[in-house]
Amino acid sequence: MKIESVEFFYLSMPEVLDIGDGSQDALLVRVRAGGVTGWGECEAAPLVSIASLVCPMSHSACKPVIASVLGQTLDGPEDIARIGRTVRDNSLDLLQADHTLAGIDIALWDLMGKKKGVPVFDLLGTKKAYPKTPYASLLFADTPEQTRVAAQALRAKGYTAIKFGWGPYGRTTAKADADQVHAAREGLGADGHLLVDAGTVWVDDVAKARQRLAALQECGAMWLEEPFVSGAIDAYAQLSKESGTVKLAGGEGCHNFHMAKHMIDHAGLGFVQIDTGRIGGITDAKLVADYAAKRGVTYVNHTFTTHLALSASLQPFAGLEDHRICEYPVEAKPLAEELSRDRLERDASGLVHVPEKPGLGVEPDLAAMRKYLVDTEIKVGGKILYRTPQI
Amino acid sequence: MKIESVEFFYLSMPEVLDIGDGSQDALLVRVRAGGVTGWGECEAAPLVSIASLVCPMSHSACKPVIASVLGQTLDGPEDIARIGRTVRDNSLDLLQADHTLAGIDIALWDLMGKKKGVPVFDLLGTKKAYPKTPYASLLFADTPEQTRVAAQALRAKGYTAIKFGWGPYGRTTAKADADQVHAAREGLGADGHLLVDAGTVWVDDVAKARQRLAALQECGAMWLEEPFVSGAIDAYAQLSKESGTVKLAGGEGCHNFHMAKHMIDHAGLGFVQIDTGRIGGITDAKLVADYAAKRGVTYVNHTFTTHLALSASLQPFAGLEDHRICEYPVEAKPLAEELSRDRLERDASGLVHVPEKPGLGVEPDLAAMRKYLVDTEIKVGGKILYRTPQI
Repeated sequence: MKIESVEFFYLSMPEVLDIGDGSQDALLVRVRAGGVTGWGECEAAPLVSIASLVCPMSHSACKPVIASVLGQTLDGPEDIARIGRTVRDNSLDLLQADHTLAGIDIALWDLMGKKKGVPVFDLLGTKKAYPKTPYASLLFADTPEQTRVAAQALRAKGYTAIKFGWGPYGRTTAKADADQVHAAREGLGADGHLLVDAGTVWVDDVAKARQRLAALQECGAMWLEEPFVSGAIDAYAQLSKESGTVKLAGGEGCHNFHMAKHMIDHAGLGFVQIDTGRIGGITDAKLVADYAAKRGVTYVNHTFTTHLALSASLQPFAGLEDHRICEYPVEAKPLAEELSRDRLERDASGLVHVPEKPGLGVEPDLAAMRKYLVDTEIKVGGKILYRTPQI
Repeated sequence: MKIESVEFFYLSMPEVLDIGDGSQDALLVRVRAGGVTGWGECEAAPLVSIASLVCPMSHSACKPVIASVLGQTLDGPEDIARIGRTVRDNSLDLLQADHTLAGIDIALWDLMGKKKGVPVFDLLGTKKAYPKTPYASLLFADTPEQTRVAAQALRAKGYTAIKFGWGPYGRTTAKADADQVHAAREGLGADGHLLVDAGTVWVDDVAKARQRLAALQECGAMWLEEPFVSGAIDAYAQLSKESGTVKLAGGEGCHNFHMAKHMIDHAGLGFVQIDTGRIGGITDAKLVADYAAKRGVTYVNHTFTTHLALSASLQPFAGLEDHRICEYPVEAKPLAEELSRDRLERDASGLVHVPEKPGLGVEPDLAAMRKYLVDTEIKVGGKILYRTPQI
């Protein structure tokens, strides 16, 4: 079959707040081929990925992403890999292209799974999909007391693993951060998995990160996530030598397999966190999962948006039995909550299962899409290059 | 002073050809503060960088680039560094932001130099700017004979260093590539510097690159540029062990200092090539130049567009006397040729000098800008976020 259409839909909450909550907007991707529809999602900055889909060509290695996708043959998984390589070849100098490709790649896997009547993980060669222990992912509250209450509430809902991140963490004193982490541990209880996400706040400053280690160790934090930006591999490596029982986690900023491989090889990570909506999709994420497993680094998804993105993010490591935990958004905005007709709910044991349905097993709710759809139009040289498509 | 305005201008040739010529369009940046105007240029994909300048916020770490620039204090070089850090902090999840920041950073340095009445290199702490030996940079022709003629013509114009790249190179057989390289050497003469640019054609495939080494060695090529994509550090390292007299060059894809540092540390490069229009501007490029010098890797600019971009690209390594050669576009399209009122012409000895005028020393020709200006409009949710500004 041939790829007949590639459509991007920009969705947003009516008001986007200046907080570290990535569920406030979304870019959904619809691809059609052979009478089948696949859905995908790109992480963050919808307008910029739309622009990279349709921009005029700058030269032979800087073409709009759609030029390498539309009309392509799509008969098997190898075609998805080939299309990804073509995008990267033809859009080499278009930095945003990896994020844009991500949503398309996810939609292609969904489409292919539906066409063949099997789940995506099956197409990836995964014989058995193991359920994951979800960690509830939410922002640090403004005060330690609020953080403690939030942790307690989540524990009451059955979450045994909780990650707090962003908010005030890392932005004032080590003492204030220690209070937050102690409060989180208190709310969660002694036996839960506590994870802390610094959201790259120290950029590449090892000294500042070092000041936070004692409290994290005292509170038995399982990991410290993103003390630094993804590129600051030397800073990661240095800190990892001093972090003791607290493992380092990072990698969500990686936008291709090579970057994630460098982090696995050189950053001293305990956990590599991959966002399928950024790294170029399920194809590259699967390469990272396999490589991480080989190198003894635990793979974890990075997901803070919809259950469509969640399903996509679980496929690459569904077959890795020992890579047990998964990020699970619990405070997503209504947009993200309403967008998926199907949800990956926890079972009676609190575990999350990758859908056994064809494709990703999560269909968007078209009515919810209409509700949050943002009319967008891009005009260049008198020609309309993009206008929000009909849902 | 405060930054009063940041304006992006999308310029393009009437027709953009599907060839590896990056001078077919341009994105010019104009920044105003304290009654002074600075100019910069972002490399490639103008529409996408415009979108990242003005896109709606997705969350606290995914803001439009302009939000971190407009209204900022700008009194000295340390403010330019601070603004760059702010952009990267606030636009962490906006992949395109590094390319967008690049043009702004360049304009800020130009503005600061004009304000203080000194060249940019002076502000960077460079006591003396050394002239560079330009290498003429052009595409491989369709046939070896045409390549030979082109090399001969450039030699007749006084160029003693010539780089051929892209075109058919690497896309068919090793034999065809060898014929091209031999033809280039023949046209250039035995004593010139011959450089070859593979344009990432082998992605990360060492075996394919290896097949080309013999011809490059026979022809005394000084470097093989970009056999692989910038991320494929292991492939670079492997090939560098086998390439003998032919040094590896690469790095133009690096979009921040960290990426370039990894290449310098681990890729076995002889030359690191930085595009100030991509890496985040002159600020990051200067960090790379200093680090390269310390590690014994030669810094070279990557420039294939205007003389404004050329001046910006020379500033970071103007003070490195032993880093002698510079890329010098010789077949740029009329847009790039006409855009700069001031040009960095070769002197009687064939050398190129960094302008000694305040700022970058290259003012855009406003009439040429008007001639190539592309009307662009971006509308989101009924609001016009971008419309081509008045020149």
